[in-house]
Amino acid sequence: MERITIIGLGLIGGSLGLALKAAKLTGIEIVGYDKDTATAGDARRLRVVDKSEPSLQRAVRDARLVIIATPIMAIRGVMEEIAGELREDCVVTDTASTKAIVMEWASQLLPATVSFVGGHPMAGKETGGVQNGEAKLFAGKPYCIIPAADASEGAVRVVTSIIQLIGARPFFIGADEHDRYVAAVSHLPLILSTALFTLVRGSPAWPELSSLASSGFRDVTRLASTDAELSHDICLTNREGVLHWLDRAVEELGRYRELLQEGREEELFKNFARAELERDTYVAAGPPVREPVAAEELPTSGEQLAALLVGQRLVRRVKDIGKLLEERQDRGGRQGVEGRDRP
Amino acid sequence: MERITIIGLGLIGGSLGLALKAAKLTGIEIVGYDKDTATAGDARRLRVVDKSEPSLQRAVRDARLVIIATPIMAIRGVMEEIAGELREDCVVTDTASTKAIVMEWASQLLPATVSFVGGHPMAGKETGGVQNGEAKLFAGKPYCIIPAADASEGAVRVVTSIIQLIGARPFFIGADEHDRYVAAVSHLPLILSTALFTLVRGSPAWPELSSLASSGFRDVTRLASTDAELSHDICLTNREGVLHWLDRAVEELGRYRELLQEGREEELFKNFARAELERDTYVAAGPPVREPVAAEELPTSGEQLAALLVGQRLVRRVKDIGKLLEERQDRGGRQGVEGRDRP
Repeated sequence: MERITIIGLGLIGGSLGLALKAAKLTGIEIVGYDKDTATAGDARRLRVVDKSEPSLQRAVRDARLVIIATPIMAIRGVMEEIAGELREDCVVTDTASTKAIVMEWASQLLPATVSFVGGHPMAGKETGGVQNGEAKLFAGKPYCIIPAADASEGAVRVVTSIIQLIGARPFFIGADEHDRYVAAVSHLPLILSTALFTLVRGSPAWPELSSLASSGFRDVTRLASTDAELSHDICLTNREGVLHWLDRAVEELGRYRELLQEGREEELFKNFARAELERDTYVAAGPPVREPVAAEELPTSGEQLAALLVGQRLVRRVKDIGKLLEERQDRGGRQGVEGRDRP
Repeated sequence: MERITIIGLGLIGGSLGLALKAAKLTGIEIVGYDKDTATAGDARRLRVVDKSEPSLQRAVRDARLVIIATPIMAIRGVMEEIAGELREDCVVTDTASTKAIVMEWASQLLPATVSFVGGHPMAGKETGGVQNGEAKLFAGKPYCIIPAADASEGAVRVVTSIIQLIGARPFFIGADEHDRYVAAVSHLPLILSTALFTLVRGSPAWPELSSLASSGFRDVTRLASTDAELSHDICLTNREGVLHWLDRAVEELGRYRELLQEGREEELFKNFARAELERDTYVAAGPPVREPVAAEELPTSGEQLAALLVGQRLVRRVKDIGKLLEERQDRGGRQGVEGRDRP
C-alpha cells in the first residue's frame, strides 16, 4: 500500500483528494492532514481522504507523494516540520499560486534525498472550503509543473501522471516565467475585480447601486470573493509581477480615458470591435491543442482556418463587424453623433 | 386584437418577444421589425414574434405599445420615422442602456398625444442576436422605469405590467440618476473587463498567457465580448458618468498599488478580508426585498440579522475572518513574512 499525503484540506486539497479517489487507484491510501481538526474531520466524513492524521509528521511518514495544499505563507513552516520525516525517494509537490518563492523554500529546506516538483492548478471557484471540493475541479484546466533543478525524472513523471489522472492539462514552465504570466492572467484580474467591488461597495449610493447591479457586475467582481488570505499571500509573494501588471492596467485605462475624453469615436469603436472579436475567438477556440496537425488537414485559407478554430458563427460576425466599420466610416462626419457634448 | 410592436430584434428585442409570447396573452398580436430582413426572418421562424413587418411605419401603425430595442444611436432615427404614424394613446418605451439622451429625444420627437416611458432591463449575456434570445432573460432582474414628465398614469401602468409579466423587478428612477448609477455598476465593469482583455491580449506572450488563463480571467473579461456597437454607444451617450467612475477606479487601483508598494500587509489583508466578506454578503442576500417585515419577525441581534440575510455559513465565515485577523495581529512583527523584499 503506497501512501499519498495531502497537507491542507481546503478547496484545492479537498478537490485533489476527491479527484484521486474518483480515479479508483488500487494499492494507494490517501492520508489527509489539516491543522484545523474540524476541517480534517469534515474531509474524512466527506470521503475526501481515506484517513486523516492529527500529527503532521506522522502524516507524511512513509508517503510516496506529499502534496502541500496549504495557504502560500504556511508552506515554509510545513516544509520545516516535515523535512526530517520524509522517506528517501519521496516526491513533494505543492499547489501554490506563486512559484519562485516556493521553489526557493524547497531548495533550502527539503533534504537532497527527496524530489520537489512545484505545481499550480489553474482552477478555483468563489466558494472555498473542503465542503465545496469537487472531483472535476481540475478537468480540462491547465496545471503548471515546475520541477526543481535536482528533481529526478521519475518524480516529474509521478506528478505529471497525477495531473493527467485528474483530467488537468500539464503545463511545464519555469518559476519566474510562471510568476510573470500568472500576474497577468490571474493576479491582475483578482486586483481589478476586487478594486471594482470595493470602489462601488464604498459608495454612499450602495443600497441603490446593489439593487441595480446585475449579472455583469456580479461576474466581473467574482474574484473579490477570493479567500482573503490567498489574495494577500499572492500580493506578497508575487509583488513585482503584480505591480508591473497593475501599472500597465492603469496605463490601458488611461488610453480608454483619452479616447473617451477626446471623443475619438472611430478609434473607440474599433477598439471595442477588436476586443469583442478577439475574445469571442479566444473563448470559441477553447483550450489550446498542442497535438500536431496532419498536412492534409491544414486549412488552405485564412477563412478556413478561422472556421476551423472558432466556428461559422464567428466568421459571420467578423464580416458583420467589417461591414459595420465600413458603414460607420461612410457616415463619418456627415451624420455626426448627437449628445456628444451633453454635460 | 391589440398590437405590441418590437423594433429591433436582437438579444433584448428577441428575448422580450419570447417572454411576452411565453405569457400567453390573449387578444395580443406581437409584431416585429428589424432593418435587417434576415434577422426579421429569423425572428419569425424562431416564433419570437407573431409576424414581422418590412415597413417600420406600417409596423407601428395601430400599435398600443411600441418597444424600441435598437442600438442606442439608432433610437433617434426610429423616433423620427415613427412619430407621424403612432396612434393617439400609444405607449412608447425603449430598452437603451443610457436614459437622459433618450428621454430628451422622446420629448423632442414624439407627438404630445403619445406617452413615453423609458425602460432599461438590467439583463444581457455575452452572446447577442435573436438566436440567443431567452424568454427567461429578464426573470428576477431589475428593470428600470423612467416615465417622461408628461407620460399618463395609464402608460406607466402598461409598462410596469409588462415588466412584471416577464418576471423582472420594476425599478422607478430618474434619468440622470439612472445614468450615474449604471455608470458604476454596468459601464465601469464593461470598461475594466474590456481593458483587462485588450491589455493581456496585446502582450507578445499572449500564446502562453491564453494557455494559462483559466475561469478567473474568463469571467472577469466576459464583458469584453459585449457587442461593440453597444459599448461604443454607451461611452458616447454616458460619457460624463463613465469618465467619473473611470477616474475613481484608477484612484482605487492607486490605493492598492500603494498598499503593495509600501508593504502595508495588515491593511492589504484587511482590505481583501472586507471585500471577501462584503461580496459574499451581497451575493448571498440576493435581490433586495422591499416588502415590509412584520415586527415579530425582526431579528433581535446583529448575528440573527446576518443569519437571516445570508445564512449560517456566512456567519461562520465572518467569525473565521475575525479570528484570522486576530491571529495575524498577534503574530505581528514577531513572525514577519518571508519573501517580502524578494525582487
